[in-house]
Amino acid sequence: MRPVITSFTNATVKRLRSLREKKGRRAEGLFLAEGLRIVTEAVEAGRVPALLMAAEDMADHPLALAAARATVEGGGEALVATRDILAKVTGKDNPGAVVAAFTLRATPLGAIDREAAAMWVVCERLKDPGNLGTILRTCDATGAGGVILLDQSCDPFSVEAVRASMGAIFTKQLAQADGTAFLEWLRAGPGMLVGAVLGPDTVDYRALQYEVPTFLFMGNEQSGLPHAYAASCDVRVGIPMLGKADSLNVAVATAVLLYKVLAQQGAATPPRSAPV
Amino acid sequence: MRPVITSFTNATVKRLRSLREKKGRRAEGLFLAEGLRIVTEAVEAGRVPALLMAAEDMADHPLALAAARATVEGGGEALVATRDILAKVTGKDNPGAVVAAFTLRATPLGAIDREAAAMWVVCERLKDPGNLGTILRTCDATGAGGVILLDQSCDPFSVEAVRASMGAIFTKQLAQADGTAFLEWLRAGPGMLVGAVLGPDTVDYRALQYEVPTFLFMGNEQSGLPHAYAASCDVRVGIPMLGKADSLNVAVATAVLLYKVLAQQGAATPPRSAPV
Repeated sequence: MRPVITSFTNATVKRLRSLREKKGRRAEGLFLAEGLRIVTEAVEAGRVPALLMAAEDMADHPLALAAARATVEGGGEALVATRDILAKVTGKDNPGAVVAAFTLRATPLGAIDREAAAMWVVCERLKDPGNLGTILRTCDATGAGGVILLDQSCDPFSVEAVRASMGAIFTKQLAQADGTAFLEWLRAGPGMLVGAVLGPDTVDYRALQYEVPTFLFMGNEQSGLPHAYAASCDVRVGIPMLGKADSLNVAVATAVLLYKVLAQQGAATPPRSAPV
Repeated sequence: MRPVITSFTNATVKRLRSLREKKGRRAEGLFLAEGLRIVTEAVEAGRVPALLMAAEDMADHPLALAAARATVEGGGEALVATRDILAKVTGKDNPGAVVAAFTLRATPLGAIDREAAAMWVVCERLKDPGNLGTILRTCDATGAGGVILLDQSCDPFSVEAVRASMGAIFTKQLAQADGTAFLEWLRAGPGMLVGAVLGPDTVDYRALQYEVPTFLFMGNEQSGLPHAYAASCDVRVGIPMLGKADSLNVAVATAVLLYKVLAQQGAATPPRSAPV
């Protein structure tokens, strides 16, 4: 993994840095993941970096070495750089020990095996990549299959989404589709479409018997699920709101629903425990 | 509310802008809230701005007028400015219609009426202001009393925390204390301290009978609840984790627990419905 890169004008440094922007990710067909833990999880999930850069003071760490080895064996490039360079690449004052670039890989809707999981999340015009990453992270924790992003949603491969996913971007399914294609695909197989909606005419989410597989349909952060989509659902559920505001953060609402479905479906599953 | 401020060097513009930094908030004893909806909620909750600035194209909006009137009647100052000025103050390309400054108000632990709510959240070294704001928002939705922040946590009056709270910063209790003072206060009255912890030796959060009031004790985003704090809890609960990762986002974990406690305690409460 030697020599150590110290130059900000190094071509690989520039290339990695470009992945912080959507334009750069498109041009390179790659996205960035930061931190030894997430990169290690990716490698363990069989996702090998195309490029890996380790901080010189951490380059001999067993996990960094393992990730670098996997990268080189997979035909990629592994480098060592100063912390200053990693700070430059990640835009963070205290960058993680490694940063790696992975091939962008979109799952076509048709490639999703809906029966591989009991629950799926469908998000419509989701705008905040932190919310998307957090939803993926909760999908991992609850055993949900993954996320289907509809219409004009945020880029799931942005640095913020990858970071908030805590590695789930590598282990969960992620598809992007437009609403019409999604509904057509959905109705071609089994599945209960459950819309999380505002207002009256909803079933209390605690009272519903969720079928397998359940697709939880979550709307945009500002405006919620449009009427046409809500109308296409098999059931519309509401979460009790006792306060002044009329809504929850979308990642929070998704988690409350996923854990409710899990409690019903996985009543017999021995929990491995633990939050935070 | 005339004349319209157009100068970036205007003293009030500089003063409002300084509130984006903790240093400025301390110096002025004020914090910023952006957006007509949040400012209106504050006014309706009896919190009157010390300073209010409305975008000139929105200054005649009934809600903006009402907020400006409340500000002036309360002895504060209400101004109109160009959108450029609001963008400068908020640091956002598309600022809301109004921005307002409110008096910083910390609740001393002793002023908290624990029996006013059935649930409270206690956060230890919470670092992310977005998480704190989201937790306050969920407290509002579930009827929890508010948040007690322990030790070196993030600033609850940062722009990010206020924004994520969606107004709950004005309606929920918020206290800051060190751990020793908190535990002393807690044990001087009724309350079940429930730690959300990682690892074995936990009760499944779905199996616990929560007492009134319940204090949910949440640890730091990276390291969770320290052992000494976990040991001080009456019960340690775990949330099932079925995936690769060993933890949830802290705002997500808090919401899953709050909704579980609510479901138990408020089984008879008619829900008003609605997520997202």
